[in-house]
Amino acid sequence: MSDVRVAGVGLTHFGSSPERTSRDLFAEASTKAFADSGVPRTDVESVCYGNFMGEISEHQGHQGPLMAEAAGVRAPATRYEAACASSGVAVRDAVRAIRNGEHDVVLVGGAERMTNLGTAGATEALAIAADDLWEVRAGMTFPGAYALMAQAYFETFGGEREDLAHVAVKNHENALPNEKAQYQRAIEVSDVLEAPLVATPLGLYDACPISDGASAVVLTSEAYAEEHDLEAPVAITGTGQGGDRMALQDREHLARSPAAREAGEEAYADAGVRAGDVDFAEVHDCFTIAEVLAIEALDLEPVGEGISAARDGRTTADGETPINLSGGLKAKGHPVGATGASQIAEVASLLAGDHPNSEFVEDATTAVAHNAGGTVASATVHVLEVVA
Amino acid sequence: MSDVRVAGVGLTHFGSSPERTSRDLFAEASTKAFADSGVPRTDVESVCYGNFMGEISEHQGHQGPLMAEAAGVRAPATRYEAACASSGVAVRDAVRAIRNGEHDVVLVGGAERMTNLGTAGATEALAIAADDLWEVRAGMTFPGAYALMAQAYFETFGGEREDLAHVAVKNHENALPNEKAQYQRAIEVSDVLEAPLVATPLGLYDACPISDGASAVVLTSEAYAEEHDLEAPVAITGTGQGGDRMALQDREHLARSPAAREAGEEAYADAGVRAGDVDFAEVHDCFTIAEVLAIEALDLEPVGEGISAARDGRTTADGETPINLSGGLKAKGHPVGATGASQIAEVASLLAGDHPNSEFVEDATTAVAHNAGGTVASATVHVLEVVA
Repeated sequence: MSDVRVAGVGLTHFGSSPERTSRDLFAEASTKAFADSGVPRTDVESVCYGNFMGEISEHQGHQGPLMAEAAGVRAPATRYEAACASSGVAVRDAVRAIRNGEHDVVLVGGAERMTNLGTAGATEALAIAADDLWEVRAGMTFPGAYALMAQAYFETFGGEREDLAHVAVKNHENALPNEKAQYQRAIEVSDVLEAPLVATPLGLYDACPISDGASAVVLTSEAYAEEHDLEAPVAITGTGQGGDRMALQDREHLARSPAAREAGEEAYADAGVRAGDVDFAEVHDCFTIAEVLAIEALDLEPVGEGISAARDGRTTADGETPINLSGGLKAKGHPVGATGASQIAEVASLLAGDHPNSEFVEDATTAVAHNAGGTVASATVHVLEVVA
Repeated sequence: MSDVRVAGVGLTHFGSSPERTSRDLFAEASTKAFADSGVPRTDVESVCYGNFMGEISEHQGHQGPLMAEAAGVRAPATRYEAACASSGVAVRDAVRAIRNGEHDVVLVGGAERMTNLGTAGATEALAIAADDLWEVRAGMTFPGAYALMAQAYFETFGGEREDLAHVAVKNHENALPNEKAQYQRAIEVSDVLEAPLVATPLGLYDACPISDGASAVVLTSEAYAEEHDLEAPVAITGTGQGGDRMALQDREHLARSPAAREAGEEAYADAGVRAGDVDFAEVHDCFTIAEVLAIEALDLEPVGEGISAARDGRTTADGETPINLSGGLKAKGHPVGATGASQIAEVASLLAGDHPNSEFVEDATTAVAHNAGGTVASATVHVLEVVA
């Protein structure tokens, strides 16, 4: 089974560019990834692409072939959709195809155009990631759903809004040097607490923004990387996916994410590592509470204790296990279909020493990327390691 | 690398059931597939699901977890979208996961709810499979696109409407004993020629209908099938995928389908068979001309000669290489996301001797399923063989 190397990564700026199509965004990201990798486009054998709401925001399905075209690649292309974990599942399939020996070079990534819908339109479009019959028609949107999860967490394990505020403050701080980030500005705990409430207990600064953007990663087999003398020191060594019931009402516990736990356990086992080996992680912080649930599901914090991790400095850049050094979805932005592959890009850059925040993880060898869909009815986890 | 066995198949009736949700349809198909297989739902490790227009027809994305739930399965689930080849690409990934040794049992299938949109609404929704910027906004719909392909074929290789009519007549004839088919009625060449023109040279009977329906297939590893003493004599022995430029204007030749040719060559090589070994095939006949292009791309007919295959009886049920013994998309129906996996189901049943048309292929050992997206910007081909 071949090792899967990260040969190059490319990201657009995440933010508001309502006039740019997803193909335009993906063309930029993939061009950067090819330049970073040194791999010629003509060597690409497959394109695995994540997109969530193209049918609604651009009247455009069947984006696989369009994105191959945008990337200047002549190869079969598939679009994967798992809500906000769309490019997370795309990465999984790319890893499979290389491990199988089917392909030596796969372009994986994602894009999303959202801001052209406006905030209300985008929120409505995002709701198609929930159960239309049992949640959406009852008025549920994602801020409301994650607010319920936060309330359940507080009731079960304790915690308060101020704990969550520290997650937002940390991730904004991390985004300061990240030129790709939507928000390169520091915020204070008081800013978070004084921001308008969106759905109690979550306020405006507990939520990630609506974003446009794209991500691209060139993955190769170990053999290809060595034969072509690529600078590709980081490998994806573990992949996992978990699933859960779609609607919150059917979950056993609103303050747990079993899909993420399963994905993590599978990825750790696949890579032959344990949670204790993880030096840092990018996790899916669409809301501040989501980061807390994620680090507990990944066993980076004991259940019920993740709430204090940011406040107590365990997950800050200079903490024991930095979380979301990129700024996370919260401050870097969340162009839905792009997010999963962008986490792979950030983790690989951090491990390779190419990231503005690499200084915080200089001796790191093992890191994790966690991508979630909906209220974590879908989750993927990938383990990345320095192997060369 | 493990052999991939077809352990069970399930199909709903294809037709008009506008009140049924895709989850309702998939629940029926998967229940039938589990019953057919003898595999317990609790053994399923992954769900690979194809759907095309759920965002539009049901305001429902993120259908992977929903469909796992509908199938009564607790396992990670991914939705694949490649327009009309959506469950074709889902099958590919299921095959990969089993070959990798990652999983022993995968549920693969698809569903589509379309008729609730009405004919005009469904036609508009289908158009998202074309290039929105360069085709759809210029007024292109799929009947128009395939009409251009038919015109180009006639100009390049000859042929006339009556040749295409024989494709429709053949597929309606094949559907007569198929209780799952939308149209179980015979038509005559004169019916096709006298039907209203939709886009010259294609008339109403040159087109497949708008359909609701679902398909499900239980795939297992060879080891699992043997250990559990399953009756699973048919294996998916080859898989291939091809891609092409999205918009017709960018194609080298409108009357060729290089994506299907590449997918076929890859699948044949993967299975270690040649086109001459193929005893029969299910191909993507969304329009009569599409069947002609498909059998040429699969090397079942020389380029330029496929047009006469139905008329001269080479592809009829009693011909040398029967095509679309199920009735094809044309007469069996085309619930888009369900089609690719339904072809696998039909081919496996035909090979296993369980199909009402199995009598026509009694000695067959090798067959092919060809699924296409858009104007064949995406194509998948699978080879199935009797192995036990």
